[in-house]
Amino acid sequence: MALVKKPVNGMKDILPAEMQIRDYVQTVIKDTYRSFGFTPIETPCMESIVNLTNKQGGENEKLIFKVLKRGEKLNLETAQTEADLVDFGMRYDLTVPLARYYSSHANELPSPFKALQIGSVWRADRPQRGRYRQFMQCDIDILGEPSNLAEIELILATTTTLGKLGFRRFEIRINERRILKAMAAYSGFSEEDYDTVFVILDKMDKIGMDGVREELAQAGFPEALIQKYTALFEGAAKAADGISYLADVLGGYLEAETVTNMKEIAASVNSCKTAEFELVFDPTLVRGMSYYTGTIFEIAMPEFGGSCGGGGRYDKMIGNFTGKDVAACGFSIGFERIILLLLESGFQVPKQPEKTAYLIEKGYPGEKLAEVIAKAQEARQNGQQVLVVRMNKNKKFQKEQLKKEGYEDFVEFFNR
Amino acid sequence: MALVKKPVNGMKDILPAEMQIRDYVQTVIKDTYRSFGFTPIETPCMESIVNLTNKQGGENEKLIFKVLKRGEKLNLETAQTEADLVDFGMRYDLTVPLARYYSSHANELPSPFKALQIGSVWRADRPQRGRYRQFMQCDIDILGEPSNLAEIELILATTTTLGKLGFRRFEIRINERRILKAMAAYSGFSEEDYDTVFVILDKMDKIGMDGVREELAQAGFPEALIQKYTALFEGAAKAADGISYLADVLGGYLEAETVTNMKEIAASVNSCKTAEFELVFDPTLVRGMSYYTGTIFEIAMPEFGGSCGGGGRYDKMIGNFTGKDVAACGFSIGFERIILLLLESGFQVPKQPEKTAYLIEKGYPGEKLAEVIAKAQEARQNGQQVLVVRMNKNKKFQKEQLKKEGYEDFVEFFNR
Repeated sequence: MALVKKPVNGMKDILPAEMQIRDYVQTVIKDTYRSFGFTPIETPCMESIVNLTNKQGGENEKLIFKVLKRGEKLNLETAQTEADLVDFGMRYDLTVPLARYYSSHANELPSPFKALQIGSVWRADRPQRGRYRQFMQCDIDILGEPSNLAEIELILATTTTLGKLGFRRFEIRINERRILKAMAAYSGFSEEDYDTVFVILDKMDKIGMDGVREELAQAGFPEALIQKYTALFEGAAKAADGISYLADVLGGYLEAETVTNMKEIAASVNSCKTAEFELVFDPTLVRGMSYYTGTIFEIAMPEFGGSCGGGGRYDKMIGNFTGKDVAACGFSIGFERIILLLLESGFQVPKQPEKTAYLIEKGYPGEKLAEVIAKAQEARQNGQQVLVVRMNKNKKFQKEQLKKEGYEDFVEFFNR
Repeated sequence: MALVKKPVNGMKDILPAEMQIRDYVQTVIKDTYRSFGFTPIETPCMESIVNLTNKQGGENEKLIFKVLKRGEKLNLETAQTEADLVDFGMRYDLTVPLARYYSSHANELPSPFKALQIGSVWRADRPQRGRYRQFMQCDIDILGEPSNLAEIELILATTTTLGKLGFRRFEIRINERRILKAMAAYSGFSEEDYDTVFVILDKMDKIGMDGVREELAQAGFPEALIQKYTALFEGAAKAADGISYLADVLGGYLEAETVTNMKEIAASVNSCKTAEFELVFDPTLVRGMSYYTGTIFEIAMPEFGGSCGGGGRYDKMIGNFTGKDVAACGFSIGFERIILLLLESGFQVPKQPEKTAYLIEKGYPGEKLAEVIAKAQEARQNGQQVLVVRMNKNKKFQKEQLKKEGYEDFVEFFNR
């Protein structure tokens, strides 16, 4: 069969110009997160299929690339269902693998454990602008820290990184699962309907408050509940301080500790932030993953419709592996969207090494080549980037091309 | 079903101490290769299954992790063979994806194109010491350079990198596919038997010359051929200059250009090398992959039985994609083996940032937390690594643990 020149459908080759930006962004991310005491770790790209399909991953579980069993384990004739054919799957995020990692190695890790992961994840999604089926995620997580010190450090580390990459005037939207629940309870929704209500609320960005109202009605909820519910959001939006407003109105439905927690996060982040951004309380923020248990947050960039990353607290996930809950909170940067924004803004990587190209004329004697290369070796030792290439017939064109790659100095070696 | 705490069979989680070394080694590799004008690129971890199973990959093609088709494309009831179930596979090396990449993007790339790839590959091998089913490879390749300038630069770049990582007294073994063939032809083997002969010769490291002799006899080759063949190796090994010896003996079987080519590579590498290593001509070197067409080379470390990397010229592979051959030569470092050697030697990453831990006593007022974090933010801006954590009841133990992670300064914040 003929070989295929294109990358597999929905995944992409990365060309040198983009790669340079990706490498630079990764370096900034790593250096900044390290300064906050986060430690890089890595997990395999494949996970046991049971870990990926236990209903923690929401919609992502429908998008798993599954890996065929091998050798004797694979029996096509007796296989009845997909499950008989598959043992591993490609990870769809870095959070499930981290929970597995921690449950396996907790004794060898410090407590609290501040993890940094940069790695590819896979989702068999319909490809669209800026969304690929293999993409990079950058996650930081703090495991074993129940207090809001975790949220504060995660938000500061992430925003400091974004600031160093030149992003300004973005927002960090923050909410709390317990506020979401209190608002639903106060309005009269019963607990088994929360998920349905939140899925609809999550569409706010796209369909607006009127759309949410309509969909709630279509889902069969009584008009009185819907009125009471949407009035809460309108009230919070109008109030100078949305959290205090909701604390007043919701009364016993919302624990005082949740309110204090949110206020402390806001106070610390606002007084310690180094980047130009706004921390905004957004009671409509839901975030899809069902594993969140407390605070949730999201990065909103004015240049980009939709989120450029997010995270939250998921205190119950590690317990699924070990039977014993461990406090956990994480923040993930939407690496691919950040790269897309930088590419579109014409971003240039700062501080390049000096780049020189040596052009060697055709027929240059083999025994003299060593001298040219020795000279290149010396310059490289001194921190320069030196490219040694054969001189083309059309030398002018060759130099123009090399200039596009950033080579500014040329040294020519002629055959005479 | 219960969740699985362990990584999938044959793959591994990377703990912080190893990760620190891996990150450091990657940085050294990238910086050094960049100084030689290599440009980082990336391809997806999955390839079309046809690209992975067209007999270029030798034994590796038996070890492919295959990815199940998705959605409507997957029809379990009509599926007869594995091929009906699978469309993608995990790449088993970085060379096949590079050839595909180049054939797809040549118009957008400089010529010659010097590519650097660092990425994971997958092989469903039986796991053993230092060998995992997901592992990192670091490849440099020069595409579009037919002359031995490619080999010289590849060997110098790779050995410079190994030298910077502290490796001494290693060997680069070099051979040429055309020398291998000339020796077989001269001895009287017919062309259709070359592959069988080379597979046996490739076991020299393990079974020695006597073993090779025996296996050739078992394969049914006449004693006279075997005598003539093995005498060649013994003669070359005794000679002061193995290549000149073979050039004399093989006469018309070996082209003069092949001999000059090898001598030029040796002369340039020996006079320009910056690391302490020996370039050794080894006529028994075969290397498994059938795609090699010219020079082949391998890294041999005294500390490690077997190869720590290798490569060679493969001038025909890109033509498989495009119908038009492009000169190509590459060198791959065995990243995982390098890491293993560094871990076993107690390697310490040089130049760490100053690491300070702030310990905050339990009950420290939330409204004063911001001051502590602001202080940490300032130190981080000045290049320090600052960890802000809650103080444990057993503070002495906590500090001991933190010292193990490299924290030397402690600042304590008490609740009074």
